[in-house]
Amino acid sequence: MPTFKVTLAYDGTDFVGWQRQTNGASIQGLLEDALSDLDGRKVVVTGAGRTDAGVHALGQVAGCSLDRAITGAAVTRALNARLPADVRVLSAAEVPPQFHARFDARAKTYRYRIWNADVVSPFERRYVWHVEGALDVVGMDAAARLLEGRHDFAAFRAAGGTTRTTERTMTASRVDRRDRLVVYETTGDGFLRYMVRAIVGTLVEIGRGRQPPAWMGDVLGGRDRARAGPTAPPEGLFLVRVDYESRTS
Amino acid sequence: MPTFKVTLAYDGTDFVGWQRQTNGASIQGLLEDALSDLDGRKVVVTGAGRTDAGVHALGQVAGCSLDRAITGAAVTRALNARLPADVRVLSAAEVPPQFHARFDARAKTYRYRIWNADVVSPFERRYVWHVEGALDVVGMDAAARLLEGRHDFAAFRAAGGTTRTTERTMTASRVDRRDRLVVYETTGDGFLRYMVRAIVGTLVEIGRGRQPPAWMGDVLGGRDRARAGPTAPPEGLFLVRVDYESRTS
Repeated sequence: MPTFKVTLAYDGTDFVGWQRQTNGASIQGLLEDALSDLDGRKVVVTGAGRTDAGVHALGQVAGCSLDRAITGAAVTRALNARLPADVRVLSAAEVPPQFHARFDARAKTYRYRIWNADVVSPFERRYVWHVEGALDVVGMDAAARLLEGRHDFAAFRAAGGTTRTTERTMTASRVDRRDRLVVYETTGDGFLRYMVRAIVGTLVEIGRGRQPPAWMGDVLGGRDRARAGPTAPPEGLFLVRVDYESRTS
Repeated sequence: MPTFKVTLAYDGTDFVGWQRQTNGASIQGLLEDALSDLDGRKVVVTGAGRTDAGVHALGQVAGCSLDRAITGAAVTRALNARLPADVRVLSAAEVPPQFHARFDARAKTYRYRIWNADVVSPFERRYVWHVEGALDVVGMDAAARLLEGRHDFAAFRAAGGTTRTTERTMTASRVDRRDRLVVYETTGDGFLRYMVRAIVGTLVEIGRGRQPPAWMGDVLGGRDRARAGPTAPPEGLFLVRVDYESRTS
């Protein structure tokens, strides 16, 4: 009964999100169906975290246990043969049976891509938020850095979110321009639902000059979602990486 | 009655190709419909060249004349407001009325992208040909360079092609590895239908070690399509650029 840590990339455009739902195709659902087909019994997977509808992943992690003796390379091949091309298994590594993709995750890294030019490349249209007009990237970066450290991120929680604690530690929060792309990247020990997208919506208000960089500190301290910027659309967001202790990675 | 040189990028995945056809959406058809809507009369465009179904463009060029007095910037905005997101007008520049997108083109550059790794990134799947196994890129590049110069390219013409002359001048023909991508890029004064894809299919035979690099010279000299490699699939091919004399560019 080997346990595997499965690392996946997916184009979230055509999915209802990571989590299995009744109203459309989910990555978890496709993965569980493929694993169940492979193992000849119902297999359940645990994701490192949920990604919402339209959000992409470069390195989502899922854990699962199989009945049959099989190598990680064979699991990778068998899953890719069963999954659609917009979901790919990058690797499957055997891990100790106590591995838990969510509880053992130490850090996650997200990237948000803003296309800041008049015309969006047809090859990028599914993977960016299009923001026209000048963006003050230096100001956005200064604001983003105010989020680094341990804070109560209630200001960026989902409307109606019921998470018990909203304290999280963010070890990196930076904005950078890469030609026509403005990229926000953040690493932390955990993220509230819609948190990255609410931060990006707030950063863009600052980038547009509607608010000064210091406003980010006010919003954070206010712990009131209504004071932050709008939620940025899902298509610009990528779950880049999930980090574990070396023993399970 | 201003004449415009319109430069376009498009994701060819969901189109029957550049040329207007009865069996599906074409880029030419969409562009003519958008221009006709803008100008209030039927507008016809001339493309620098046809791209086949599934082939992409980073810089296709089309020429058209409009009745109304309008700037290039306004044409760009108006067309992008009317076109789907997988076709974008990058620029529209007013040119002399005698401009002809096809006859005035001096050179075209094509790029073909091969994904040479076990697992295709979900974000690249629409824009590459997946070739597994080792590829001898040095050998492929040596073979590609044998095509530079003025040659009869009948060996790479489409089956049943009826072009009168098959002589063309290729000023560049190179293969390069960029991490998991193997990229073929070629510039020439003209290309026969399916020519780049037939060359790529031939290069991959060499890359796989089934033929030596010098075989490319034999295939070229034989002027017989049956001796060349198979036609590579369309999704890896991009029309990168069309060059004109400076007077019209």
